[in-house]
Parts: sequence; C-alpha cells; structure tokens
Amino acid sequence: MVGWLLLAESSSPGGFDFILMADLKPLFSLDGDLVAAEALLRDVFGIVVDEVIRKGTSASEKVCEWKEPEELKRLLDLELRSQGEAPEQILARCRAVIRYSVKTCHPHFFNQLFSGLDPHSLAGRVITESLNTSQYTYEIAPVFVLMEEEVLKKLRALVGWSSGDGVFCPGGSISNMYAMNLARYQRYPDCKQRGLRGLPPLALFTSKECHYSIKKGAAFLGLGTDSVWIVKTDERGKMMPEDLERQISLAEAEGAVPFLVSATSGTTVLGAFDPLEAIADVCQRHGLWLHVDAAWGGSVLLSQTHRHLLDGIQRADSVAWNPHKLLAAGLQCSALLLHDTSNLLRRCHGSQASYLFQQDKFYDVALDTGDKVVQCGRRVDCLKLWLMWKAQGGQGLERRVDRAFALAWYLVEELKKREGFELVIEPEFVNVCFWFVPPSLRGKQENPDYSERLAKLDREPSHWASLNVLRLMRDSLLSCCRALAGNSGH
Amino acid sequence: MVGWLLLAESSSPGGFDFILMADLKPLFSLDGDLVAAEALLRDVFGIVVDEVIRKGTSASEKVCEWKEPEELKRLLDLELRSQGEAPEQILARCRAVIRYSVKTCHPHFFNQLFSGLDPHSLAGRVITESLNTSQYTYEIAPVFVLMEEEVLKKLRALVGWSSGDGVFCPGGSISNMYAMNLARYQRYPDCKQRGLRGLPPLALFTSKECHYSIKKGAAFLGLGTDSVWIVKTDERGKMMPEDLERQISLAEAEGAVPFLVSATSGTTVLGAFDPLEAIADVCQRHGLWLHVDAAWGGSVLLSQTHRHLLDGIQRADSVAWNPHKLLAAGLQCSALLLHDTSNLLRRCHGSQASYLFQQDKFYDVALDTGDKVVQCGRRVDCLKLWLMWKAQGGQGLERRVDRAFALAWYLVEELKKREGFELVIEPEFVNVCFWFVPPSLRGKQENPDYSERLAKLDREPSHWASLNVLRLMRDSLLSCCRALAGNSGH
Repeated sequence: MVGWLLLAESSSPGGFDFILMADLKPLFSLDGDLVAAEALLRDVFGIVVDEVIRKGTSASEKVCEWKEPEELKRLLDLELRSQGEAPEQILARCRAVIRYSVKTCHPHFFNQLFSGLDPHSLAGRVITESLNTSQYTYEIAPVFVLMEEEVLKKLRALVGWSSGDGVFCPGGSISNMYAMNLARYQRYPDCKQRGLRGLPPLALFTSKECHYSIKKGAAFLGLGTDSVWIVKTDERGKMMPEDLERQISLAEAEGAVPFLVSATSGTTVLGAFDPLEAIADVCQRHGLWLHVDAAWGGSVLLSQTHRHLLDGIQRADSVAWNPHKLLAAGLQCSALLLHDTSNLLRRCHGSQASYLFQQDKFYDVALDTGDKVVQCGRRVDCLKLWLMWKAQGGQGLERRVDRAFALAWYLVEELKKREGFELVIEPEFVNVCFWFVPPSLRGKQENPDYSERLAKLDREPSHWASLNVLRLMRDSLLSCCRALAGNSGH
Repeated sequence: MVGWLLLAESSSPGGFDFILMADLKPLFSLDGDLVAAEALLRDVFGIVVDEVIRKGTSASEKVCEWKEPEELKRLLDLELRSQGEAPEQILARCRAVIRYSVKTCHPHFFNQLFSGLDPHSLAGRVITESLNTSQYTYEIAPVFVLMEEEVLKKLRALVGWSSGDGVFCPGGSISNMYAMNLARYQRYPDCKQRGLRGLPPLALFTSKECHYSIKKGAAFLGLGTDSVWIVKTDERGKMMPEDLERQISLAEAEGAVPFLVSATSGTTVLGAFDPLEAIADVCQRHGLWLHVDAAWGGSVLLSQTHRHLLDGIQRADSVAWNPHKLLAAGLQCSALLLHDTSNLLRRCHGSQASYLFQQDKFYDVALDTGDKVVQCGRRVDCLKLWLMWKAQGGQGLERRVDRAFALAWYLVEELKKREGFELVIEPEFVNVCFWFVPPSLRGKQENPDYSERLAKLDREPSHWASLNVLRLMRDSLLSCCRALAGNSGH
C-alpha cells in the first residue's frame, strides 16, 4: 500500500505538483485571511508582552488574581458554541485567560519546581509553535533532528559520556518509564513480544523519597507497584546503600529478580542527592541497571562548584534530566539520556511502521528518530534549550545554577535570624524546608505534642481565610531561589 | 514532611511573604533585563510573522529549503559552547532555524496528517507558552483546569455522551495506551499493584490497518505484542466484524482472555472507518472494552453530513481524538475521552502524592486532575483548541471539515481526468491514494508483473535526483485537502 502512495510522487518529479496543484491553487488562496491572521497574531503578541512579560514579572502585580472555581467559570464563559466570535471578543478572551492565570514567571511564585521566565527559551518556544512540526523524521524536521542530537550530546557530555543515545520525553515521569522499560528489555528482550507472563517476578529499587512516577510507571508497565522495593533513606533523605543491599537480598529471597535501581539526584521535597558511587557499586555487584532520576538535580552538572553532588552519575545506564526545572527552559523539556550505544532505544521501542519510516530514503534513515519512542508524533523540545544555551553559554547557565545555591544559603541565613522560623534540615540543594512556628508554640519544642500541634495548624479553617494567593506558595520556598535566579538572568 | 512545608505558609498569612520577601526583593530586580527580554521577544515575534506566517504560507515560497544533513549541520553551527552570543547573533539563529525548517503551514505541504495554520490556535499556543504552567492542580492552573474540562465535555458531547471523563495526552499513541491500561485495570484492578504475572494471558483485537501504537503500547504495558490479535480488513480497509468474532474464538481457544477491541475511525493510509455498530455488538456480546482510535477521523464528528462514518462511536468505552490533525489545532492536542463516570482514570493512575495532591485544600480537590494521569507535569493542550473554537464556532469548524471532504472529491475528479493517474480506492475520507503510472507502464495493467514494476519505480535512483523538496510530499496527497481547508479558514 505504501509503495503505491510513494509512487505518485517519486515517478512524477514536478508532475502533479505543477499540473494538478495549479488547478487547486485558486481554492486555497490565503490573501484575505492572511491579513487577518497577521493582525490577530500581532495583537496577541502585544498582549503577551504587556500582560505576561511585563506585568507578569512585576513584583508589584499579583501572582494570580484568585477566583473560586464557580466564579471563574462565570467570568471566563468557557462554553463552546456554534457561532464564532469577532476578533475584538477573541482578544478580550486572551486577556481574560492571562488575567486569571497564575504568573509562573512572577518573582513571588514559589509553588513548583519550575518557574521564572527565560526570554530566549520563550522565543524558542514561540518559533517551535509556529513551525508546528513533529520530531520523528529528518524530512519533516531536518533542523530539529540534528539539533536534538546536538543538545542530547551536550547533556550526555555533562553526565560524563562521550557517546550514547537519548530522546526528549513528555515529562520526567515518562523518562523514568522509558528507563524501566529499557532495563526490562535489555534483561528480557522477549518481553517485547511475549509480555511479562513468562518471566519471573521482577524487582526494582528506589528510595522512599523518590518521585511518585516510579510507582506509577511500575503499574503502567504491567510490573505492578509491588515490584517496587522501597529503600530506606538517612536523615538527609538520601538512599542508604546498605539498605539497598538488604532489599535486594530480601527480594531475591522472595524469588524476585532484581533488574533496576532508580536513584534520585534532587528529591522533590528535601532536594536530596542519593550517593551514586556507592549505589553504582551495588548495581555493579548485582548486575543491575542504574537509572538516575535527575529531573530536578541534573542541571547542577553545569556547575563546577556543585556538580560533586552527582559524583558517580557517569556510571549510570540512564539519566532523566528536566531542563525545564532548574534551568527554566519551559514546560516541557525532559531528556532521557542513555549510555547505551547498541541502539537499545530503537530495538526496544521500534515497530518499523512502513509508511513513516521507509528504509529507502535518500538520506541516512538513522536520522529518523521516531521509532526510538513509544509516541508517534513528538513535540520539538530541543529548540528552547538550544537557543537559551546559545544566548547564555554554558558559563551563563552555570552562573544561574550557582546563583540559585547562593540565594538558598542567603535565605537560610535570613530564616535563622528570624524568630519563629525553624529549618527542617540544612539544605544541600535549593530546596529550603522550614517551619513557621506561631507564637503560641514557640519555646515549646520539648512538649510531647509539639510536632502534632505544629502540623495540625495547617488544617485549621481559621488559617484559610487570607490564604488565597499565598496558598500558591504551597511548597513554601521550595523553588524560591531558583525562581529568582531564573528571572534575573546572569 | 509535607505537613512541615505546608505549615510555613498556612500559619503565617502574610508572614514571610511581606517580611522575608521584602529583603529578597533587591536580589531579583528585573528592571534591566526586562527591557532586553521585551526587545528580544518583540523581534522574534516579528520574525515569526514575516518568515513563518507570511512567507511560510505563500505558495510562491519553498516548502523547505532542503539541505543534506552534513551541510545543514555546518550551516546551523549547532554546537553549544561556554560563551553566550550577542542578541543580533541570536536573531540570526532564529531566522536560520526557520529558514531551513519545513513549513508545515505551506499550501504545498502534504507530508503528514497535520498541517495548515490556524492563527487562533497559534495565538492560544503562544499564550500557553508564555504562561508556562502545568495542568495538574487548580491552584497552579485555575483557568486551564476548568477549560480542559469544558473542552473535553464538548468533545464527549460530539461522541454522544452526556457524562464521562477524559484527559489530554501527549499524542494519540499515549491515548491508546491509556485506553489499554484502563481496560486492563477495569477487568483486573489488582494488576495495578500485583502486575500481570498472576493474570491469564490477555488478548486485544485490532485491524491490520490500525495505527502502530497499538503494538507499541502492548509492548510498553508489558502485555507483549503477541497479545495483539490482528483482525482482517475488507477491500476498503475496514475491520471485518465476522473475523473479529473468529479471532476472539481463536484467542479463547488458546487460553487467552479477550479484554479489549481497538477499532479505528480513519486509518492512517486509506482513511478507513471501521464499522463501529457491528464491532460494538461483538464487544457487548463478549463483554469487551471498546476503544475507538479516532485520532485522525474523530473530527468528522463535527460534520452533520459526514459524521455517520462514526455511527456507533457512542457505544465505545473510550475514544482517542487528535484535534491537532484534521482541525489544525497544533501539535499536540490529543484527547482521550471516556464514557466512565466511576473515576476509573483516577483509580487506575492515581498515586496520591501527598506533596502535590493535598486533600485539605480550600477548593474541591476533584479539580486537581494531575492524579488521573501517568505524567506528573502535563502541558496545557486545551487553550489552543478552545480559542480556535471560540473564534470559528462549531459551525466554522464543521465547514472546515466539510470543505476538506469537498476538496478530496475535487481532487479525485481531477485525477480521473488525467492520464496516468490511477486511484487505489475511491476515498470515503480525505485520504486520496493513487498511483502515478509512467508512460512505459500505461495500458499494461493486465501484465502479471504490472504491480511489481509500478511499486519498484519508487526505489530506482534515477527517480531520486529531483525529489528533494518533492519528497516532502511522501504520503502523496494524503493530507492535501485537509491542508487546504486548514489554511484557508472557512
């Protein structure tokens, strides 16, 4: 069938293109609409600059004009109707969407592990959206196929690998799933065809501070959450290698086959870095795939000063790293990096769909990366990072990371000076976790119910009244310093 | 731990926000950088309008300035270095990226199942990128949480459901995997925890013209590609219900447990619509989950004239529908729709990560949709479709779909008039599949080696020379008419 489709073009160079298309041309004249399209887009670009870039980053404006769901529904008039609306109305809608949305680029936005506004990254994203292509073949995305490989190569080099493979995924959770699937496939290639049924129970290991996507992934991949063995962490939130050894023994004693350890570089809450060298030793001893979920902490590799936190990462088999977090590249920019040079990605995920990945193209079909992934169409996620990197340089990004650390320390010093603030732990990353102790509880640390009363405060309705916008700081200052760094360039 | 983080804010309304932040403020002054950021973005917006919107949609410009990979690498200078670059150089890079990229909005772009340029959708995408948020909680995306639900409700209504559930996924392949996982979970809820090992072999059914993501999904989900039973198609490429019955019997005879049928509404190559009513009857008889992969054909539901092609879709359990294809909403806009009202999505995929999906929020936490999915951060994919719909109205979108059909028929008529063009089948959708028969083969249809020689032409190097840009029409006129419709509005 595909052969048929191909023939029409290949045997008629210039054939129907110039004959048939000439007839069709009058049907798709854009002249009239183009003017309107341009006008609309220029207006919207202006609104974005005014309302998001300028006001959204101004500390004197609100992070969010908070509305209760029912009121917001009424204000937005979300219903989709039969009749279209006039241009002015559409522009008003654009303004309303921005007005009632959270400004994640606002300097007081501390809610998430992403924030800030990098103008070069945003420029890259706007170009990406306007070009609207998919990352799967060289013919459809020549620039981006080459660019993705270059960006991945750079990220791999920072991990410490001179060769390897990789792909951008729609988020770190999916990157982690890829790692699990690759490790499983490497151990049991038959699994792709025959599934898990013929296999012994598999076991993977991660710490109790790991990201929840590990368990979600185990369920999605048919392994089941029971296949996830939870390794203890120390008081800093780091995986304890001796307990990893113990869990591996326990799993084996129960008849399970260990195949993967997922270490975390930068846990979500505490910002802890698992001891990768010691974990790599364990993996080496047992022949296990070492995956490092560095979605949050991977960007520390850019800093000569702080990259020691990830010492040993070069011994991993795979690394998940989200530059949309600490580097502010914009959602989503999630790389899965592999040390593998045996084409494991393609062997594990390939299906050789003949209508898309023809083998008789006039360029090296190894450039058609689409069969490396479980997606079909795949967004272009490399340009925003590439353009930002070109503008900042590795040095600029390094300064940004170092500055985030410096701001975290500054914040810690400020907290220590203030009555009523109590650090949970001394941070080693940019997660600053602390209590605010209300006057009624101060000096009562020794009381047996102190912790309970402190924790309970959060749930008392009397504390909710004035929290609307402040609640947006839900994770307290988790991402504060990074936001600052991301916002102010170098 | 999470309790601790929450406390800091909730017990100090206005507390550290006004005290501590005041001290930090001088550190993140944006004043200087903001001017540069605005200037850059205004310049880039101008480049996008000139180079993509205006030139990219002009039939007198090239679809793509084609370069061989090695030359393109040299032209782009992709390497990421330590030193950053000056603003003029960055703008030059933006121009180069656009210059050498394929203009999927070009009227002569026929390579893929997406194309065209809808300015309202693009406006929505630019706003989405500038707001840079994730779809998972109401507090972080109040507008988009409500908007996604409204858009999904509208799409469900077009399917024929007055209630249900759904979510936007990163592409139709992942939507299909969700359907497979949900069907599996519904049948065997224990699978989430215990995995596939304790289960009998499962069987799912789809036609030989189905999208390759079904097999990819079966492998990824641990079922294995062997669990996919291929049902025969008729001469139009439609699944044969009687063969579906037969395959179910065969699977059962081998000890497998059928659990899912994935029908296709709009196959990738021929554009065939499986007979959903008859397939639904089979599913009902055997108690199977009916998934409809309407990634390509779902948008036909907007057309009163043509929606009969999907008759029976209201009997499905799940539907995958990609408005980024026929409706030109922009990559990616992929909805998974569910008839379920029992919170299956959340039960199947939820992990109740306590630091993100706290249960003690001051709004209805059912609005926090993040735990319905296997991703953590999830892009906002609803605004582009919503804004386009508001501008065009359902009627405008319906006209667009009807026009694509009309253009397909027009093209077919033109092909029939021209010597050397031979239809593969009479299309029922907008996929127009045909041969171009070179003079040397004309009138030789009766020769035994006719088909072989016709197919072989594609692989002869002599046909490659002048194909550079024309090769971009790889799938011949597959998406031609849709592109035209998408480009010219209503």
